[in-house]
Formats: sequence, structure tokens, C-alpha cells
Amino acid sequence: MRGDRGRPYTSPHWVTDAWSAIADDRVVRVVVDAAGGDNAPDEIVRGALDAVGPQLHVILVGDEPRIRALLPQGVQYVRVVHAPDVIGYNEEPATAARAKTGSSIVIGLKLVHAGEADAFVSAGNTGAVVAASVLYVRRIPGVKRPAICTIMPAMPAPVAFLDVGANAEVRAEFLRQFAIMGQAFAREVMSIPEPTIGLLSIGEEPTKGTPDVIEAHQLIANDQRIAHFYGNIEGRDIMNRLVDVIVTDGFTGNVGLKTIEGSAKAILGALKATIMWSAKTKLGGLLLQKDLQILKDALNPEEFGGALLVGMNAPVVIAHGNSKARGIAQAVRMGRRGAVSDLLPTIARELGTKTGSV
Amino acid sequence: MRGDRGRPYTSPHWVTDAWSAIADDRVVRVVVDAAGGDNAPDEIVRGALDAVGPQLHVILVGDEPRIRALLPQGVQYVRVVHAPDVIGYNEEPATAARAKTGSSIVIGLKLVHAGEADAFVSAGNTGAVVAASVLYVRRIPGVKRPAICTIMPAMPAPVAFLDVGANAEVRAEFLRQFAIMGQAFAREVMSIPEPTIGLLSIGEEPTKGTPDVIEAHQLIANDQRIAHFYGNIEGRDIMNRLVDVIVTDGFTGNVGLKTIEGSAKAILGALKATIMWSAKTKLGGLLLQKDLQILKDALNPEEFGGALLVGMNAPVVIAHGNSKARGIAQAVRMGRRGAVSDLLPTIARELGTKTGSV
Repeated sequence: MRGDRGRPYTSPHWVTDAWSAIADDRVVRVVVDAAGGDNAPDEIVRGALDAVGPQLHVILVGDEPRIRALLPQGVQYVRVVHAPDVIGYNEEPATAARAKTGSSIVIGLKLVHAGEADAFVSAGNTGAVVAASVLYVRRIPGVKRPAICTIMPAMPAPVAFLDVGANAEVRAEFLRQFAIMGQAFAREVMSIPEPTIGLLSIGEEPTKGTPDVIEAHQLIANDQRIAHFYGNIEGRDIMNRLVDVIVTDGFTGNVGLKTIEGSAKAILGALKATIMWSAKTKLGGLLLQKDLQILKDALNPEEFGGALLVGMNAPVVIAHGNSKARGIAQAVRMGRRGAVSDLLPTIARELGTKTGSV
Repeated sequence: MRGDRGRPYTSPHWVTDAWSAIADDRVVRVVVDAAGGDNAPDEIVRGALDAVGPQLHVILVGDEPRIRALLPQGVQYVRVVHAPDVIGYNEEPATAARAKTGSSIVIGLKLVHAGEADAFVSAGNTGAVVAASVLYVRRIPGVKRPAICTIMPAMPAPVAFLDVGANAEVRAEFLRQFAIMGQAFAREVMSIPEPTIGLLSIGEEPTKGTPDVIEAHQLIANDQRIAHFYGNIEGRDIMNRLVDVIVTDGFTGNVGLKTIEGSAKAILGALKATIMWSAKTKLGGLLLQKDLQILKDALNPEEFGGALLVGMNAPVVIAHGNSKARGIAQAVRMGRRGAVSDLLPTIARELGTKTGSV
């Protein structure tokens, strides 16, 4: 599946495309936060409708009249639940998650907790989604901290990368758990049977990095649950795909993810400017146009749809704030995949203990 | 000077090129570690000879017979000092810096301390260069930690980025000092008269990040010595050049720097593969060839030559381990620039206090 289409890089949506080929007739109900994200509710509703089907029901939570106005007559497999409130981008996450019980995020997550839905998708305030998930969906017992695990563009194929923002600070033990959850994500969500795990640091040697990273290296290396630990990797190895899963803290991961998004944007922008430089270069660009679009798509993070908050009792998908319909549809599909795959049972089996949680 | 050549990006060597235009007839003596780096001593000696001149004398430290064999007859402004030992890449930095007194790094730095040279350049073990610099050249009194400040490719022009590896862990006060030293570097070394400073974090709001980053934001915002504090920036802003100087800890900075190097390599590699895809795309590539080379050069970190260890009593330049002659010549020029500019006096004036050091 990796880079095997004859091109040196693979469109990121191979991951989500592959899911439709997996025979599975279970019905999954995915809550979609219709009030979260820059393009709510129009693009959110449109994306949800693109993904909906007999095996994928959606529950749209938000301003009911506005949502209903966007639904076609007689639409099937769609439920609407009204939420009178919304958590904004700049609200303090923990406070908003507790106080705004009428928000689409809290109402949606409570539907999952109540068993009325199987997964949750939001393009809203990430911190609030994480905080409200911990409050209302709760961690799998034994999981010390949930982590945001994303599928990131790399060459020749995407990699799993966690934590990209749930925990600005970590302890070594959290990093060990991230490695175990990332391994499960690569196997169950990305269909990589024998994923290799790398720990992001500032040198290959196990002695390089912060004290927590050095300790985490030892914990991971000696953990029988982690089958293929590559060791430390460095920043330059992320996009050049040395391993299948990259483990780091939420501060470094968030900076790394956004640095790669920014670099791709800057370099593609410079490439475009190079093409526009003269009549000669414009002709060259014309000849390359179709193939450059494939490269551009391979670098587009929206194609993945979102990141999964791993370690929770149900799949919680965090979509890009600026997601359009395509991104939301992919995120909804990831929510379904999270629910039907063995991701959660695997994490529960490997980390689950009623006494191990903090 | 930024992006002003009509192109949307500027070759990184505008910085070093600009130095030759600055009238300055002082003689600067730069020690070059001829034993450090993947391509020592051949490329190191060649690079030093490319930079040498009446105002830039070099002192080559390493295996004297091997060095002398590489020097042309009657070469001027070059001195050779024998070092019987060398610090390898995998040696523990602090231990090696103390124990290996016969190494090229220690002998070279002691020449600077003794006043026989004005600057030091090495492509060897970075940790050992930092540790030995602290031991033998010493910090400017008042500087709590030196930081590695690099000039990094960005669009449309390079930025200053520190710390990229000297301190895996920092305190808020160190980050404040890095901001002051980075501002001095941008002014004095990069000739940016009014540099803006950004603090790398995981959100724009001053409340985002680790507790140290949040505290550093307040310290920097309230520090009169920092003229233009932009506030927090994110990973995506590094290459898209939101600010002139980016401040972070040595772990995040090292990961960020290498992530950008890796992303540029991966994307340029994918672009090359795209061009090689068919006869049509090959023709397109041919038409773009010359202009793509300009873009590739703009992304080549070797063009900068090296990073400066700021906060020391003399300029210490850390060159890429895989530097070839071009990179070493640029690093030697940076050593001279560090010595003749007002970088060190500025840092001493703004941070210098005999009582403030720890």
C-alpha cells in the first residue's frame, strides 16, 4: 500500500480510500459538530452528506434551523440535534468544556457517552474537544493521557504522528503509552501490519534529548508490547519516512506538524513563482501541470480529514479548523473506521487496567 | 535586502555576500578546525583557502603534516598548529571537552582564549564544540546559556533561528536572553536594522504553550531591550517568514531546523521524480531547469556556512558536519563577521553583568 502506485509519493487519501474496500456492513453513527470550524455550518453539513450512507449515519449537532435549511428533502440516515450554544476558537478550553453544556461539542460528546452515537467529529476549538472528551467520553481506563494522532504527508507515503497537541508537557511514561497507541493506530487504522516506531529526538543515540525523552527511549526499547522500535529519529526523518509511527510530546509534535505544513506551502509557493517567471518557465509549468497537481495533493493535509484523539472510549476525530466539505467527509469516514476497527479494543487490551490510571 | 532581487525568494548567501561589501580593513584571525567534519581535512583546508585574504588570516589546527600537504607553495595568511588528537562524532561532549586537551577543538579554542585568534570554526562534534567553548572561551558574564543561532532558508528571505541545539532544556529566563541575543544577531550579522522577534509556540495566544514558554512570553513582552516583539508564532510561520528572529528551546529548534531541511529534501526529491515521470514532464523540467536551480540553492542550508554560538566571548561558528569547501568558506566569513561586527559588544552591553551569571 505504501508508495506502490508507481509514483515516488502516494496521495494521502489512499488511507481513507482503502477503507471503502474493507467489507463491513455494521452501521456506525457519527456525531458531526455542525457549529465548529471556519466554514460551519455549510461545508460541515455538505461534507457529512458526502459521507453518509446505509452503514454510516450522521447526527448533526448545532443550530437546528440553520442545519435543516441545508438538508435536501427526504434525506436518509441523518439526524439533527439542536445545540443552542457554541464554543469559540479563543475560549479557554477546560473552562468552556465544563461551563458550556449547551454547546455543540458538549451535547455531541454526551450523545456518544449515552450510547446514542459511536464516534464524534469536530473542526472546532481543539483544546475544548480534548477537554470535553476527557470529561464526557472519558479515557480508556489505564490510559494516562490521550494523544492527538494524525496521518501526515511524507514521501513516499504518509506516516502516523503523535502527539500533535493534546499535551504540551509529557512524562516518559506518557511517551511510552503514545508509542503503544500509535502502533495500534498504524495497524488498525492505516492497515500497516508491522509498523516501526521512532522516537523524535535531537540525535540518533539513545542518550540524546531531554531527560524525559532519554527515559522514554529506555521504556519503549524494553517494552514487549512494542514490536519494532527503530530508536530515535530526527526532524529530517519525518517527511523522508524512516519509520511508520513517530512519537513525541504535544509541543514538539504540534510545532513539527505545522512546520511541515508551512514548509510545503512555502516551497510550493516558490515553485509556482518560479513557473510564472518567464514565458519559457510558464511553458515548462504547463507541461508539468497535471503531475504537479498529484504532488500538491499528496502534500495536502486536508485529504486525511482529521486526526484521531487516541486513548478515549470512542473515536474522537479532530478536523482542521479550515476544513471544507472534502476534509469533513474524510474525517467522518475516519470516525467510522475508528469505530469498526480493532483500534479501541487493542488499546484497551494493551494499556487497559482499572488501577493504572492517574 | 530581503527578497529584493525581483524573485520571490532570495539565495541564502545574500547574507555572506553582503559582508564583502562592508568596508572594513581590520585583520581578523580565524581558527579553523581542520580535523572536524565528514570531509576533513581536504574540504576544510580548501574552504579555508577560499576565504583567506589580507584581512582574513586563518589558523588551521589538526594533523600538521596532512594539512601542510594540502597547502600550495608560498601560501600567505595561513598558519598551521598541530593537534595530535581529535574528538569523534559519538564521543560524550562534556567528557571529551575536558579530557581531550590535545584535540583540534580544545587547542583551537585555547588559541582564541589566549588572544592569538579572534574566532573559531568547526564542522566537528557540535556538543563538544559547545562544551569546550564554555570551558575555554567562556560566556560573556551575565549570559546564562549560549545558544546556537542559525540563518535558515525561508521565503522570501532567510530568518535567524535560535536555539537550534545547545540547550535541550531551558528556563523562561534563558528564552528571554535568546530573544535579546537573536535581536543582536539579526541587526549586526544579518544587517536587519529593526528585526521583529517571534516566540515559537503552539498557538498565537500568549497563554498557549508550556509553562516556560508562557512565562517567557511575558518576560519578552515586558523587556525594554526587545524593540519589536511580534508575540507567539507557530511552526507554519517559520518558512513563511512572519518575523526576522525565531526564539525557541534547543530541542524544539533542533527538531524544527532538521524538519525543514528534511521537508525541503523530500519535496525537491518528489519534484525531481515528477519531472522524470514522462517525456512530456522531462521537457517541462528542462525548460524550468535553470530557475529551479535558483530555488534549490535558496533552500540549501550549506550556503550559510554555519551557525553562530551566541553568548560567548568570541565568535564560535558551528558548520554542518557534512560541509564541503563552500560551506567552510562561508563559515570562516561568518567568523570574521562575528568578530568585526558589533554583535559581541551589543550582547555584552545588554546582558553583561558580572553578577548576573549563574
